[in-house]
Amino acid sequence: MVLYQLLRRHPEVAGINLYDHKLTENEKLSQMVSAFYTDDTQVQPYDPKTIMVDNQMVFFATSAGVTAQLSQPYIQAGFPVIDLSGDLRLEDASEYQRWYHKPAAPQLAMRQAHYGLADFESAVHQTYVANPGCYATATLLGLAPLVQNDLIDPGSIIVDAKSGTSGAGKNPAQATHFTQANDNLQIYKPNQHQHIPEIMLELQRWNDDVAAIQFMTTLLPITRGIMSTIYAKVKPGVGGAQIDQAYATTYGNKPFVHYIGEHLPDIKQVVGTNNCDIGVVYNPVTQMMVVDSVIDNLLKGAAGQAVQNFNQMFDYEETSGLNLQTFLP
Amino acid sequence: MVLYQLLRRHPEVAGINLYDHKLTENEKLSQMVSAFYTDDTQVQPYDPKTIMVDNQMVFFATSAGVTAQLSQPYIQAGFPVIDLSGDLRLEDASEYQRWYHKPAAPQLAMRQAHYGLADFESAVHQTYVANPGCYATATLLGLAPLVQNDLIDPGSIIVDAKSGTSGAGKNPAQATHFTQANDNLQIYKPNQHQHIPEIMLELQRWNDDVAAIQFMTTLLPITRGIMSTIYAKVKPGVGGAQIDQAYATTYGNKPFVHYIGEHLPDIKQVVGTNNCDIGVVYNPVTQMMVVDSVIDNLLKGAAGQAVQNFNQMFDYEETSGLNLQTFLP
Amino acid sequence: MVLYQLLRRHPEVAGINLYDHKLTENEKLSQMVSAFYTDDTQVQPYDPKTIMVDNQMVFFATSAGVTAQLSQPYIQAGFPVIDLSGDLRLEDASEYQRWYHKPAAPQLAMRQAHYGLADFESAVHQTYVANPGCYATATLLGLAPLVQNDLIDPGSIIVDAKSGTSGAGKNPAQATHFTQANDNLQIYKPNQHQHIPEIMLELQRWNDDVAAIQFMTTLLPITRGIMSTIYAKVKPGVGGAQIDQAYATTYGNKPFVHYIGEHLPDIKQVVGTNNCDIGVVYNPVTQMMVVDSVIDNLLKGAAGQAVQNFNQMFDYEETSGLNLQTFLP
Amino acid sequence: MVLYQLLRRHPEVAGINLYDHKLTENEKLSQMVSAFYTDDTQVQPYDPKTIMVDNQMVFFATSAGVTAQLSQPYIQAGFPVIDLSGDLRLEDASEYQRWYHKPAAPQLAMRQAHYGLADFESAVHQTYVANPGCYATATLLGLAPLVQNDLIDPGSIIVDAKSGTSGAGKNPAQATHFTQANDNLQIYKPNQHQHIPEIMLELQRWNDDVAAIQFMTTLLPITRGIMSTIYAKVKPGVGGAQIDQAYATTYGNKPFVHYIGEHLPDIKQVVGTNNCDIGVVYNPVTQMMVVDSVIDNLLKGAAGQAVQNFNQMFDYEETSGLNLQTFLP
Repeated sequence: MVLYQLLRRHPEVAGINLYDHKLTENEKLSQMVSAFYTDDTQVQPYDPKTIMVDNQMVFFATSAGVTAQLSQPYIQAGFPVIDLSGDLRLEDASEYQRWYHKPAAPQLAMRQAHYGLADFESAVHQTYVANPGCYATATLLGLAPLVQNDLIDPGSIIVDAKSGTSGAGKNPAQATHFTQANDNLQIYKPNQHQHIPEIMLELQRWNDDVAAIQFMTTLLPITRGIMSTIYAKVKPGVGGAQIDQAYATTYGNKPFVHYIGEHLPDIKQVVGTNNCDIGVVYNPVTQMMVVDSVIDNLLKGAAGQAVQNFNQMFDYEETSGLNLQTFLP
Repeated sequence: MVLYQLLRRHPEVAGINLYDHKLTENEKLSQMVSAFYTDDTQVQPYDPKTIMVDNQMVFFATSAGVTAQLSQPYIQAGFPVIDLSGDLRLEDASEYQRWYHKPAAPQLAMRQAHYGLADFESAVHQTYVANPGCYATATLLGLAPLVQNDLIDPGSIIVDAKSGTSGAGKNPAQATHFTQANDNLQIYKPNQHQHIPEIMLELQRWNDDVAAIQFMTTLLPITRGIMSTIYAKVKPGVGGAQIDQAYATTYGNKPFVHYIGEHLPDIKQVVGTNNCDIGVVYNPVTQMMVVDSVIDNLLKGAAGQAVQNFNQMFDYEETSGLNLQTFLP
Repeated sequence: MVLYQLLRRHPEVAGINLYDHKLTENEKLSQMVSAFYTDDTQVQPYDPKTIMVDNQMVFFATSAGVTAQLSQPYIQAGFPVIDLSGDLRLEDASEYQRWYHKPAAPQLAMRQAHYGLADFESAVHQTYVANPGCYATATLLGLAPLVQNDLIDPGSIIVDAKSGTSGAGKNPAQATHFTQANDNLQIYKPNQHQHIPEIMLELQRWNDDVAAIQFMTTLLPITRGIMSTIYAKVKPGVGGAQIDQAYATTYGNKPFVHYIGEHLPDIKQVVGTNNCDIGVVYNPVTQMMVVDSVIDNLLKGAAGQAVQNFNQMFDYEETSGLNLQTFLP
Repeated sequence: MVLYQLLRRHPEVAGINLYDHKLTENEKLSQMVSAFYTDDTQVQPYDPKTIMVDNQMVFFATSAGVTAQLSQPYIQAGFPVIDLSGDLRLEDASEYQRWYHKPAAPQLAMRQAHYGLADFESAVHQTYVANPGCYATATLLGLAPLVQNDLIDPGSIIVDAKSGTSGAGKNPAQATHFTQANDNLQIYKPNQHQHIPEIMLELQRWNDDVAAIQFMTTLLPITRGIMSTIYAKVKPGVGGAQIDQAYATTYGNKPFVHYIGEHLPDIKQVVGTNNCDIGVVYNPVTQMMVVDSVIDNLLKGAAGQAVQNFNQMFDYEETSGLNLQTFLP
């Protein structure tokens, strides 16, 4: 629904049709999503043929396991798709099944889908874009300058990632019950989070020495936001100035990623925006560095990055429809 | 489970048997309730005959609708019961069905059950005690001195009650999903809360002029605690001194209810204790008064008051097993 | 600072000069307000002559007691001012001193200042607009249809108002220390809040039968938002349909105030917007009604309403620069 | 004040005298600490002679820099002291000044003071006990089995520590203002926290190969609790079974430290108790392990451990006065 709100205000978007694959006949959005009680837009039953006739492209904002089944007609027709789920982010069907515990999309489709890490990959000329996961986005943006420039020991990467509850599923569950989550910190999925394989794939595209990473996910008593605190051992001979240079160069001209030096950002400063703020501290005593990368999991971690991919796909201004602002405090 | 923790430390309790009416065979507590993962006490399948043979009394900590069905054997045998649910708090079966939307207990049983507002009613010689609801407890304790002494216009009572999420149901639900509850305030059940009829019954026992009250419930983004903010119009001729006197006298010797004058208490100061703190401010300009009554919904609002009733029933010290303390901050 | 962010994006605003009356020489905004660490706009020392020469109007976002002293030059010159503080909201200097405990502005200036409740009063042709307080805004918008149409007993108004911590002062203080505020509910200023006199003045402009109101303020463990829960006795002969009609008519064409019938709004649904959502429930049994009025205290309760007044003053579109959106959840 | 509450209920404590070095004459506790508004105990002006005459031992619960100045009389008299501050935890005066930025205690006193990590060091026959810091306690307990048994690469220790706001200072400050802390995560003091030197000292007592550690501290939007998430590379040849064995053996008979295997604990499960719960996960792919160690920063991290040291010092039962319970949820 955040995606819908973004697209409603996008200057290049002429109209939006909404579909739901659980409907059999039209239903008002106001009846389906209580937060949109003033919006009477008709949501239509899902039908690929209708979709491809009435629209120029389609966004899929579905749970894991859905587009693995539904993507084929679009791929065959070469119809543009931006998929916010994890179903086509990986390259191997059995890998997908191992991490997601659901049947995978056809192997070929997975190979062809473009991994839409928008600040590094271009979606121009792509027809199927797999939008990255939220944890993956924060982590990859935090690591890119180090891994691309071979500045760290590839076997030393540790990610201690923390997320607000809006990234942990919309359906009520025990861990996100206010009574359980409030005033608490809960580690979940140590080394099991399904974003790990896509992080590995992209890191290995940048540097095939990366073999494995340590990845912990913790549930924070906040609504929105992700902080990826990344630790890595720096290679001998590499110093603070080189690291600073790598980040400054990599992110000097990317409108949505802000390298802010040694100032380690709070989560709150990016919530409500499509920004990723990154701070880096190098400790010469331990030769270890810490990267603090923060994003809003619903914007840069999902809908915002999807709109970035959309802008690339259709050759619009990179920042079109993403001129967001958070009202501090 | 808070009740179990209290009873485990109660000096007069020799042993505790746990039963669950959904079990068919014994199961370890550690397997059933994750928070008790170190406690391997056997939980037994529910069986009235076994219960009445192996124990001297039984506490029911079940959801609405259960004891309405299960209470009969105990009532017939005159076996002591303290029931934490709302099933036998009222006096009329159709009234119960109207508010709880479930089949009621037999009318006679409802009439015989003792409404266990421990600070005002005595459970001595009682065999079936219906433990009051949390909102009801906070509200009745806040109103008692005014209503018993006929100091207010009985038609002017407004209760603006606020509760933490642990009072709103253990099962994950939309309203208590952290993402929905955090940083938010949600009014629910305006004038519909099922505690209203029991509040009315008790108020009318004190003063049959009370006809109806306004009762709003709001969900707070906190884990525990209830604040009942009560407004009422003072009768002509009644002044601040009289009101203060009524509260001081009523609560002068009750160990768990503290009248603290014009200091309006925070919720946090009672959480973790069996106390009800009450502050009162009288506004001579509007001739209206405000009562601020706070309790811990799981202790004074449920398990703690149940232990008070237990102590009365078996003639133990009033504060036995209830010498609780909250570690501030 | 929220005001600054709004004005930066206002289509009719060509430039913004920032001043601070504590500076003696220019200073970068990034050095003064950490949240704006990327903004190097020069903040200049405060000087009325410079301000009136370099600008077409001035907003004052200062604490209580400042504009009481600084407003004179502008009033004398007839230079347009929108003042977000409470200093010129009242009409009587001794009344101001009684509630704010500070020296008042000149009596004549207070009489001349326009009380900018934007949805009801017009700032066209006004030179000094006193922007209403946050609690006052939520409360007055909630009460207007009832008081203007004489539907309630004017002596029965009770306001139970709750606010997040961003409305309770920016300077660190005991009550807003996270350890004190978290997981807690704190009543403060019963019947003492300085918004009471301005609420009374405006209510009396609508209906001079209103003599006094009961007004309680409670601090919520949330960052932003105000909920005014208002209770009032309905006049004999007035029914639910009439009340509904009054709200529907009053707010039918006001872009920022949404009457949503019996649906009682959450605070979260208006945070990040300039909207005031209002729900109303009438209880025929007690003949009492409840109004639930919610706003974002920093937007509709301050900066957003200031921009509304600005738009009126300079004859811009009413919604200009206020096309805000909150990204749910 | 948590210490005072614990001691009031300690079975071996006959009486408690309270002193404050800022007072010049007696003052009631109820007047000094609002949370204790019912306690009229006299707090006396600080005077070492009086203290040593009227008492058998003294606890210091003062800020950094105070006992560095005040400890001498007690050390000279051999009068038993338990000091909750960091002033005598280290061994070197210049080291103290480097980390705490205050004048240090005499070097000799610092050498003689006993570092009271109660679960590993014995305070029997000690006269001056320096109670460890909260972060230090959680971290050392989490690391002990690994470092004592030489199971990890000593240069690979990374600590990502998270704490609630009650550990970050009682005085209102910007970072702990509810508006700043709520819904946020803030990294502070990367590699600068003053607990680092004491952690290093104790680790080196166990294994002098430990040269330096990476230590990050993050402020959580919760009131109480600390989670130390510790990462370390396991030595070649060491496997999961050995690690599990080391933890089970080390903590098999310590009443307050619970090794719970691969179950990674929440913060909430220890709040209100004097327990440290520890979970450990070994990842054979990266040969890295994660230790999750949680404590209540005010109990196990301060007052609770102080009472453990007190029990050792006076040869009481180890668990005396520490039979605490948290009422879940």
